[in-house]
Amino acid sequence: MAARLLDGTAAALAIRAELAPRIADFTRRAGRQPGLGIVLVGDKADSQIYVTNKLKSAADEGIGATLSHLPADASLDQVLTLVRMLNADPATDGVLVQSPMPEALGSTAMQSIFDAIDPAKDVDGFTPVNVGRLVQNRADLVPCTPAGIIELLKRSAIDIAGKHAVVIGRSDIVGKPLATLLLHRHATVTVCHSRTVDLQEVAATADILIAAIGRPGMVRKSFVKPGATVIDVGINRVTDPAVARELLGDRSARYEGFVKRGSAVVGDVHREVADIAGALSPVPGGVGPLTIAMLMANTLRAAEMRLIDTIVDRR
Amino acid sequence: MAARLLDGTAAALAIRAELAPRIADFTRRAGRQPGLGIVLVGDKADSQIYVTNKLKSAADEGIGATLSHLPADASLDQVLTLVRMLNADPATDGVLVQSPMPEALGSTAMQSIFDAIDPAKDVDGFTPVNVGRLVQNRADLVPCTPAGIIELLKRSAIDIAGKHAVVIGRSDIVGKPLATLLLHRHATVTVCHSRTVDLQEVAATADILIAAIGRPGMVRKSFVKPGATVIDVGINRVTDPAVARELLGDRSARYEGFVKRGSAVVGDVHREVADIAGALSPVPGGVGPLTIAMLMANTLRAAEMRLIDTIVDRR
Repeated sequence: MAARLLDGTAAALAIRAELAPRIADFTRRAGRQPGLGIVLVGDKADSQIYVTNKLKSAADEGIGATLSHLPADASLDQVLTLVRMLNADPATDGVLVQSPMPEALGSTAMQSIFDAIDPAKDVDGFTPVNVGRLVQNRADLVPCTPAGIIELLKRSAIDIAGKHAVVIGRSDIVGKPLATLLLHRHATVTVCHSRTVDLQEVAATADILIAAIGRPGMVRKSFVKPGATVIDVGINRVTDPAVARELLGDRSARYEGFVKRGSAVVGDVHREVADIAGALSPVPGGVGPLTIAMLMANTLRAAEMRLIDTIVDRR
Repeated sequence: MAARLLDGTAAALAIRAELAPRIADFTRRAGRQPGLGIVLVGDKADSQIYVTNKLKSAADEGIGATLSHLPADASLDQVLTLVRMLNADPATDGVLVQSPMPEALGSTAMQSIFDAIDPAKDVDGFTPVNVGRLVQNRADLVPCTPAGIIELLKRSAIDIAGKHAVVIGRSDIVGKPLATLLLHRHATVTVCHSRTVDLQEVAATADILIAAIGRPGMVRKSFVKPGATVIDVGINRVTDPAVARELLGDRSARYEGFVKRGSAVVGDVHREVADIAGALSPVPGGVGPLTIAMLMANTLRAAEMRLIDTIVDRR
């Protein structure tokens, strides 16, 4: 194995250590903790795990997070009413609605719900006005996963300016905002996707390659220029033993875990890439912990901005 | 000369012919013409020419355009007050503030003014919420120059899906929104800029190359893959005779015009590119007329949306 492993867990801990005194300071000045309202609809197992992790991180960090859990058969109106209550609650600084919504609510439900979040409390950065401000390079609240990737690169002393960054994936949550952040940091940026011709050749021109397309182990050695930085953003649950053996290696502790539990989470980057990349952010242990750290950072930032607004209003 | 010339003037005429019956229909239903309020601050010659062209096009098209002209020493408050009056005026469907502002207003004045425009009347598509909706692929009002380029490609039967598009320039007005539009039409998109290393090599991988960087004649033959489509978005005024001779050719009618007037407008693409490109949108006669046609289209669209809202409100 040649690649330097980028340790997202360590970077997340460093970020959270930096947040701690600011959170304590906010709590002292405001007379309450920063408040994060999390909305979960339905019983999807993965969503419950994500929400549990967020609640635990907030508690560890001194952020007062509350969970509002609606049943899987909740109506869109019920979800919107809940979001509006959190918007109106003075002690709630951030509102996070865990995606996805139950399919019964229709394909546009998630966006309707994001649209209802007060932009000043939009800690995911998914409302149109915050997306627009990101493009205009004046965002207060940047989507957590892309912001976490930028932090990981910065803290790993990997230069962005003048480099060719190739982003595989064009989602609203990762691909598009990440491309914008890299562009503002003076990378030359290429966005690839499922309709890209010669994906392998384009990827192999990257100095920084980001895989966020949701295809287990799709990025092979042949996609990577020797020495390039590779960031794996994929979170794919595999249950096929043959696929798991191929992607985890049949003598690894992670493969043993798969055999025990019947499933495992793998990224978009094949393990063989570690032999050729210069630096690699793996799954798990890479971007995941940073996403949660940036959620904490956004909640604090929203709280600080609301506190300043309150002080100004009182004058 | 090998390249097929993409005739922006003809495409703009075709678009405007398609708008005419819709404008007549709106005027009949609403009892008034679609209304466009144009704001001009100061006496910059180029800005005055742009505004005059927009007013003339609107009049030709059956759109009621009015010019509000403030002196060069107007305050930011005066400009904002004017914008708010146009926002509140029921007969104004679109508000356009001609950029740039006089330098005395400071570097953030233009954005403050755009921010004040009612998003429903934002015919330039520069307010944060409209920028965000563009990224989310659900824009009602798309910035005029990028929208015009997409129309030109479509009407010239140039495929976008699966092609590699390289955009040189990352402005909020052209580069970034155009990259987004091309991405949504399934191009693989690379954005280059002044900090790009090996710009020439990257550009030469493009199937569709768009130059919007504001450097006279910068894109030479060596930047272009033989047969590629090249779209010149540059609008650069040159006054140096040596530069003019090089870029216009000393035996051309345009060079004679330069000698007579002492200046000429040239694009970012060198004339030698016509020998190697498969298709070329030139300056002048390419993107310029389309920008104005799309402004008319946006004004009509804003008017139609407001009319529907009015009908719904009355119920």
